[in-house]
Amino acid sequence: MVHPASDEAWVKDSEPVIVSGSRQNDASSPSPYKVGFPPKRKLVTQFTDRLKETFLGDDPLRPYKDQPRSRKFVLGLQYLFPIFDWGRNYNLKKFKGDAISGLTIASLCIPQDIGYSKLANLDPQFGLYSSFVPPLVYAVMGSSRDIAIGPVAVVSLLLGTLLQNEFDPVKEKLQYERLAFTATFFAGITQAALGFFRLGFLIDFLSHAAVVGFMAGAAITIALQQLKGFLGIKKFTKETDIISVMKSVWGSVHHGWNWQTILIGSSFLAFLLFAKYIGKKKKKLFWIPAIAPLISVIISTFFVYITRADKEGVAIVQHIDKGINPSSLHKIFFDGPNVAKGFRIGAVAGMIGLTEAIAIGRTFAAMKDYQLDGNKEMLALGTMNVVGSMTSCYVATGSFSRSAVNYMAGCQTAVSNIVMSLIVFLTLEVITPLFKYTPNAILSSIIISAVIGLIDYEAAHLIWKIDKLDFIACMGAFFGVVFKSVEIGLLIAVAISLAKILLQVTRPRTALLGNLPGTTIYRNTEQYPEASKVPGILIVRVDSAIYFSNSNYVKERILRWLRDEEDKLKENNLPKIEHLIVEMSPVIDIDTSGIHALEELYKSLAKHDIKLVLANPGPVVMEKLQSSKFTELIGQDNIFLTVGEAVMTLAPKSREEA
Amino acid sequence: MVHPASDEAWVKDSEPVIVSGSRQNDASSPSPYKVGFPPKRKLVTQFTDRLKETFLGDDPLRPYKDQPRSRKFVLGLQYLFPIFDWGRNYNLKKFKGDAISGLTIASLCIPQDIGYSKLANLDPQFGLYSSFVPPLVYAVMGSSRDIAIGPVAVVSLLLGTLLQNEFDPVKEKLQYERLAFTATFFAGITQAALGFFRLGFLIDFLSHAAVVGFMAGAAITIALQQLKGFLGIKKFTKETDIISVMKSVWGSVHHGWNWQTILIGSSFLAFLLFAKYIGKKKKKLFWIPAIAPLISVIISTFFVYITRADKEGVAIVQHIDKGINPSSLHKIFFDGPNVAKGFRIGAVAGMIGLTEAIAIGRTFAAMKDYQLDGNKEMLALGTMNVVGSMTSCYVATGSFSRSAVNYMAGCQTAVSNIVMSLIVFLTLEVITPLFKYTPNAILSSIIISAVIGLIDYEAAHLIWKIDKLDFIACMGAFFGVVFKSVEIGLLIAVAISLAKILLQVTRPRTALLGNLPGTTIYRNTEQYPEASKVPGILIVRVDSAIYFSNSNYVKERILRWLRDEEDKLKENNLPKIEHLIVEMSPVIDIDTSGIHALEELYKSLAKHDIKLVLANPGPVVMEKLQSSKFTELIGQDNIFLTVGEAVMTLAPKSREEA
Repeated sequence: MVHPASDEAWVKDSEPVIVSGSRQNDASSPSPYKVGFPPKRKLVTQFTDRLKETFLGDDPLRPYKDQPRSRKFVLGLQYLFPIFDWGRNYNLKKFKGDAISGLTIASLCIPQDIGYSKLANLDPQFGLYSSFVPPLVYAVMGSSRDIAIGPVAVVSLLLGTLLQNEFDPVKEKLQYERLAFTATFFAGITQAALGFFRLGFLIDFLSHAAVVGFMAGAAITIALQQLKGFLGIKKFTKETDIISVMKSVWGSVHHGWNWQTILIGSSFLAFLLFAKYIGKKKKKLFWIPAIAPLISVIISTFFVYITRADKEGVAIVQHIDKGINPSSLHKIFFDGPNVAKGFRIGAVAGMIGLTEAIAIGRTFAAMKDYQLDGNKEMLALGTMNVVGSMTSCYVATGSFSRSAVNYMAGCQTAVSNIVMSLIVFLTLEVITPLFKYTPNAILSSIIISAVIGLIDYEAAHLIWKIDKLDFIACMGAFFGVVFKSVEIGLLIAVAISLAKILLQVTRPRTALLGNLPGTTIYRNTEQYPEASKVPGILIVRVDSAIYFSNSNYVKERILRWLRDEEDKLKENNLPKIEHLIVEMSPVIDIDTSGIHALEELYKSLAKHDIKLVLANPGPVVMEKLQSSKFTELIGQDNIFLTVGEAVMTLAPKSREEA
Repeated sequence: MVHPASDEAWVKDSEPVIVSGSRQNDASSPSPYKVGFPPKRKLVTQFTDRLKETFLGDDPLRPYKDQPRSRKFVLGLQYLFPIFDWGRNYNLKKFKGDAISGLTIASLCIPQDIGYSKLANLDPQFGLYSSFVPPLVYAVMGSSRDIAIGPVAVVSLLLGTLLQNEFDPVKEKLQYERLAFTATFFAGITQAALGFFRLGFLIDFLSHAAVVGFMAGAAITIALQQLKGFLGIKKFTKETDIISVMKSVWGSVHHGWNWQTILIGSSFLAFLLFAKYIGKKKKKLFWIPAIAPLISVIISTFFVYITRADKEGVAIVQHIDKGINPSSLHKIFFDGPNVAKGFRIGAVAGMIGLTEAIAIGRTFAAMKDYQLDGNKEMLALGTMNVVGSMTSCYVATGSFSRSAVNYMAGCQTAVSNIVMSLIVFLTLEVITPLFKYTPNAILSSIIISAVIGLIDYEAAHLIWKIDKLDFIACMGAFFGVVFKSVEIGLLIAVAISLAKILLQVTRPRTALLGNLPGTTIYRNTEQYPEASKVPGILIVRVDSAIYFSNSNYVKERILRWLRDEEDKLKENNLPKIEHLIVEMSPVIDIDTSGIHALEELYKSLAKHDIKLVLANPGPVVMEKLQSSKFTELIGQDNIFLTVGEAVMTLAPKSREEA
């Protein structure tokens, strides 16, 4: 929204505008400019501009500008189904990359899917179902080229925890499944609605720090849950907090642990971790950790089959339904009290799914330098989950680990998701019965080795270094998840994120400014100790919009700066302060409460014979000061273009009197 | 918290630092200053400084500094009981002012109290009780000199609405009263706790605009409720929304209205409004509207007594208990489910009471130029309500209308509250039986004429002129109260207030900067159309802290400015952009997400051969850029003290190549 006038200014500008020394403004004569007003905009324009900036900040209508109608239709179609866009330039070379990466992530996702569905307290086939339909839908509608779609650990755990608060996954199995599909349906609706109404920015309210803490906490919780399968414990707590789990584990140490299970689990865990280590050491060998899980499954299944270790108490998968996704439309609750439950659970799971998918999408888009429309992505992910909920899938989203593998294996487009999906299709149709003897311990090992990657020490350390408050948010979310539950951790993460914003808005920074000797520049005296104050003048900068939430604080704080300064002046017998300059550059907006506060400040100062002077108020602020008649109250002359000019005009008088 | 180093700079500064023209930096040589780092502070110092600024922003410990212990004790005592402070300078002249104003507000409060207790569905004596004990407690502990304490319309209505959701005020009278005292107790506890933990800033989250709307809505609702007494309707709805009330009113038009009641009510309402008008016209006659209600009560009571109009269906007060407040400590619920209910209702009523009292206190403190410690006030108001709850009072707070009268009648100290309290004491002891024949219609007229003052058209108009979004908040709260209920209106007010803050934080403003010809000043090209752009350089200013909630938006927005600009350049065949300067002055803080966004911006720009340059990052930002190694990434040389210096350094190169 550059104003036309400024464009014009630019076009006229044929010679460089760098000002030469001679034309420079000097101290004796202030520059000829007065603080400007923005050109008056109509109310409607103002309002639509604001709306546009809020909801269409990414300017999605840009390509449609000045296009014929037929072209607009094609563009619209390509917008909804990006496959029509990139599909036309698809070629064999690209397919080669996609085929390899698709195969790799398929081999990784099959064992993970079976494990993750256990986290969600669902039968193993549902995990595989969720890796078949959703990736196909995403491939048509999504615009990320690198994301790998399917069930993920954190969402599975969250869903499992929330669902079992409502129904028992064993005793009320059918109800439980129905609620799972209902939740998936509403997760999709929520995601699509956020995208459609362009409310995608809402997920930005989960701060990076909170997400880091939450993910790490979820990883620990998931790993702890795996102790059941890993140690072969039969009676296990339903709570997910570390204390309950540890009690469960130690309580069954004497007669609940199964050494055969532990042996199988730990040897394969060692193998998986070693594979991971290799992959990390040599980036080129990324495929080793990628196929290690499948190899583990094959070997261990074969081993159990021939030794019949399941008769020694090694728990096995037992049974996976053969065949592709049956319809589940009739299972979704569309009336009764379960709709509200499903909505609540689905909305939470959907939001977390979005956070993960969008973070992945953005990361890889930045790495390959392509644009990603967050709202468009949400629409794609939402549609995918709605379709999924009708085809026996539970909430799917982008997986961190598989997307990274996808990227490293050289995927080019979303076709890699299609390839993966086809492999899962074949698996479902042909080889699921072979998983019968797969020991649960191996699935636990695979999950443990997968979720370890979610614990991002380095990010946490960086957060600690950069912002301590962020670190508290991070740790709050972490400990909330580990010691209480996923929901509580999530709640803490959101609450701290919001509190941080509110704190920033309530207690903005203010600074005393001083002159950098030899220049007309005025800077924070704390940052630039060489900056010196001007006798008789106090210069304060307010570093925030002045809103109802901070207007009183700002006023009081400025008066406090003044009191402190006057105390010092008295001690040193120096001339008293006659002008208070408020540097308004960072004050980007002001509301009625803010203007009240300025008026009160003006009155308080007037009682002490101190004049209030403003420097460089922005366009919006200037407009509001004008319409509230505040400019008349303090006098137009007391509003300056820069602090430098204000000092130039006011200081000589102070000097004479001093 | 001025850093010592800057104090030193100041003390050294014996000659004025106004820079002479010759020492001025000129365009050919940038100033010798580099962007400064603030001196490193220890983590603990940093943390305590932050805490201090948040919770002790008003520096309440200032007077205690460097004082002997005995003096500290006296100061502490005076802090808790300001009466020991101002009481020592109290004299006869001050008492004269206080006595007159005390008498005036007493005559105003007695009829109001009886009416307001009806709003709270309580017997009339409870209103009088609440004007006896709380003002005495406040006079000892409060620090406002002008506030008039007692029951107020909005809090009475709110309390009445919330309480009758739990118990029927007629059928379950005792339970209702007990819950009222419980709520009052917890209102006091909430208020005192907010003050004690210095969380007073929480009430700032109700924006001025929302309060204006809420108050006006409450006034309309209260006035509508008075139609019952005013029209003499017997069967009246319990809902407070305008539609239910209007249905009730029209439904009983044929056989429910009582013409005698209407006659009495409307003639006295006309009298009251006329008195109000006179008071407004001539400020000196402020006492006319102040005593008009009492006069109306006396005349109408006498009139009903001699005509026995009550036998014609004119509803009268019937009975008020004689004698002062009985103890009600035993009535407060301290266990059982009613504690939670009482707490919830009390917390809401307490917060609204606080908002009103603090707003009044601040207004008059600013008018008479004395300091008011918000947190201290909350402690006083809270204690007052806790004591009140044990002496048969319901929630009391500062009344807008009576405080204004108090101020105009020339009150000097809180002694005017003591005088008022004593008059109420005499009333309770001696003349309450005389109120038996007071018609309810007169009380309704008094309440209607009182609450009209809560509708502040001018404030609403000003809000409309200054900030449209604020106006929406105002109207939202207004319509919420009028069309739904007080709670819903309150909820809307809080929600919109918060949403506004969040919106500001999510979608900060950005601006393109241009050079003001003949200066080294760079300003928003929208505000200053004469500002001209520099070929090859794009200068963008970000007007907010860069946080997780907006980091993506800021990055995308900057890239959009760039795309838009490049399109224009291509059209005009002008040299392409080589440097992007981000003016960081208004960026007061940055977090990990913000730094990520800058890194991604840097990478995206690098792909287009554009260099990222920062101008004037603040101390906190600089520290964080450093610790995250971002400064190393873009190079220390690409961080400049001002935009001017950056352009000076970078532009010649662009020129040569152009």
